[in-house]
Amino acid sequence: MLSVSEAQALILAESRSFGTEKISLEKSFGRVLAQDVRADRDYPPFNRSMMDGFAIVAEQFSAQCEFHVRGTVFPGDEKSLAHGLSRGPANAIKIMTGAPVPAGFDAVIRKEDAVTDGENVRFTIASAGLWQAISRQGEDLRKDDALPLIGRTIDNSTASLLASLGIVRPQVAKLPKISIISTGNEIISPAKKPRPTQIRNANTTALCAQLAGFGIHRVTTAHAADDRAKLRRLVSSRAHSDILLLTGGVSAGDTDYVPEVLSELKYHCAFHKVLIKPGKPLWFGHKGKTVVFAIPGNPFSCQVIFKVFIEPYLRACFGMHALPALRLPLAEQRVKKDALEHYFPVRISKATEEDESSPLSALPFNGSGDVRAALYSDGIARQAADAAVIDAGAVTDFFPWRAL
Amino acid sequence: MLSVSEAQALILAESRSFGTEKISLEKSFGRVLAQDVRADRDYPPFNRSMMDGFAIVAEQFSAQCEFHVRGTVFPGDEKSLAHGLSRGPANAIKIMTGAPVPAGFDAVIRKEDAVTDGENVRFTIASAGLWQAISRQGEDLRKDDALPLIGRTIDNSTASLLASLGIVRPQVAKLPKISIISTGNEIISPAKKPRPTQIRNANTTALCAQLAGFGIHRVTTAHAADDRAKLRRLVSSRAHSDILLLTGGVSAGDTDYVPEVLSELKYHCAFHKVLIKPGKPLWFGHKGKTVVFAIPGNPFSCQVIFKVFIEPYLRACFGMHALPALRLPLAEQRVKKDALEHYFPVRISKATEEDESSPLSALPFNGSGDVRAALYSDGIARQAADAAVIDAGAVTDFFPWRAL
Repeated sequence: MLSVSEAQALILAESRSFGTEKISLEKSFGRVLAQDVRADRDYPPFNRSMMDGFAIVAEQFSAQCEFHVRGTVFPGDEKSLAHGLSRGPANAIKIMTGAPVPAGFDAVIRKEDAVTDGENVRFTIASAGLWQAISRQGEDLRKDDALPLIGRTIDNSTASLLASLGIVRPQVAKLPKISIISTGNEIISPAKKPRPTQIRNANTTALCAQLAGFGIHRVTTAHAADDRAKLRRLVSSRAHSDILLLTGGVSAGDTDYVPEVLSELKYHCAFHKVLIKPGKPLWFGHKGKTVVFAIPGNPFSCQVIFKVFIEPYLRACFGMHALPALRLPLAEQRVKKDALEHYFPVRISKATEEDESSPLSALPFNGSGDVRAALYSDGIARQAADAAVIDAGAVTDFFPWRAL
Repeated sequence: MLSVSEAQALILAESRSFGTEKISLEKSFGRVLAQDVRADRDYPPFNRSMMDGFAIVAEQFSAQCEFHVRGTVFPGDEKSLAHGLSRGPANAIKIMTGAPVPAGFDAVIRKEDAVTDGENVRFTIASAGLWQAISRQGEDLRKDDALPLIGRTIDNSTASLLASLGIVRPQVAKLPKISIISTGNEIISPAKKPRPTQIRNANTTALCAQLAGFGIHRVTTAHAADDRAKLRRLVSSRAHSDILLLTGGVSAGDTDYVPEVLSELKYHCAFHKVLIKPGKPLWFGHKGKTVVFAIPGNPFSCQVIFKVFIEPYLRACFGMHALPALRLPLAEQRVKKDALEHYFPVRISKATEEDESSPLSALPFNGSGDVRAALYSDGIARQAADAAVIDAGAVTDFFPWRAL
């Protein structure tokens, strides 16, 4: 049976771009950039005052020397001040934060350090440094500077830059066409009232919630009873999907038809079963451009499989870098007896000591079928296959549900 | 001047609910629950087999004893097996994962540990424990058990539970009506070509990206030049807003009209200026049901102010718990000279040692006006007002852009 990392490698080997598209910046939040960018001009585009105060020539400064105020510059001003003002002795320009520093001036002294009657100004500081309180033209970016951005999620930090650079229709990774087929005679829609032996379908909803984190909101969903012919027809009808997710019916029960049906339909099985808990019966395969994850039906298994296998696949398809685990200390000892790689629900607790990283606390649960296994958790932590014990306080790999 | 925590307290004092509404579960991802829930029945609703195998009566087990296979149970089966089968000596029922364990049976032995000809079965294990491989009725939740969920974001872990419990129209916190007014003569739309002293508006986009993280996608935006009368008319026209965000014009320049205009319009100023860098000129106030954050105009300041002040306000309004900082070690020493609370962009680096929490690396930037200050960052870290030095490796408060 494959280890988790072997299974991940086989999955990543099937990753591919779903294409790119240009969309409006306002609708791009959460999407992934498929383009790098270049600065269209210098940033700042001019020497920009960082303060409300007075622009002077630094070498003309001496303590208590009086400057003549020869004008005022506001942000956006283009009006030319009389050329050469900076060459006159002891000229000053009143200037506002964000305004362009007039040519020749090379220091700004903030108004709090100035005494002025409107016509003249002197300063209460002992010295003035060259380029003091000035953001110099091009110090952040030079025109044509390239910024590698392919694979970055458009969050506030990226969106702010794109807006600054005037990139209002960024090129982003297209979203895949995804179909979810839940299976199982006992499974009913969450909207229906269950009979005594029926349970409601939680997996389709949980998968949709996880997909929504990638901006994927349109997903085709359907349910198949444990009927081989019906399941085959339904899977066939989803052949246009980029990604097909099946839940349930993937283990070794007499009505677990999913692996057989996929095989009959000529899906190539890359693997069936992984050394993971929960989620061991995972089946992964592909045919043409469609990849299939057939996921065990327990609700906690399903959420873990998405996080451990489907999310890295999506990230690779979108050109995102692999997300390293966040490493945080686990508050309590954890012991396991099997040789499986364990994933268990944890929440981040408040650090109690000054020098302590935020600790993870494991949440109690009754196995992968527990409907509240993941509830109140911030994500899942890993216990490696060969780690029988995680000591209390030992640093552990943590995967938040909401990826950073 | 107020400290950051004093300013936060004044802001949180103005928090209020924006009401609640019921929406469909499929559209609720990222929204915040405004209801607790109760279990509509036991979970599991029946003794559920965790394995494909055979149900037996544990006390009838002895090594190599042969059981008679008296039927098969599939998930969802309601057909009544002959009553009292469990009382007969050495009866077994073939059972599938997820199927209800027939009355009287109290252990399941997985098929891998069974040898059967279809009519009889014996087991290759030495003993069978009571309730082995059975999830017992009600062990996860008892009917009518209450689960406190008010204030929880609907992520996969919550959505999965809601679906299981049949809550398909959860009650969620309503979203506020938000208006953004950018100000400044030098500021133009990102879609326009700037003249030499103009710069593009990054703040409206960045704020919208940050608001989108709370599911707030409809925001009214407008721009005001540095004209007192026009600004006043525009601010007046936004009096219906729950939250009004202004950017720029809030400092001490001659055309920084925002505080005056807000005052003329009878907004109560709770504070103006905070001991924070960047973002010191922040103005916060309110009138009737509208709160106003007037945010300094530099792009990094704006993103920091959202994270440090507006996000906690929104969380409080939505009934969410206050989000403790994530505490992680800062890789390099950081020194500051002023008495302000600093926030600076950081990314999470890969831990290099086995026992190390993921370290934060500070990203270089040229001050709050740097258009790429936040680029490539995962969030911001804090240096307390009275902490002149953060030692290399010291644990630091970290606030990811995407809240967990």
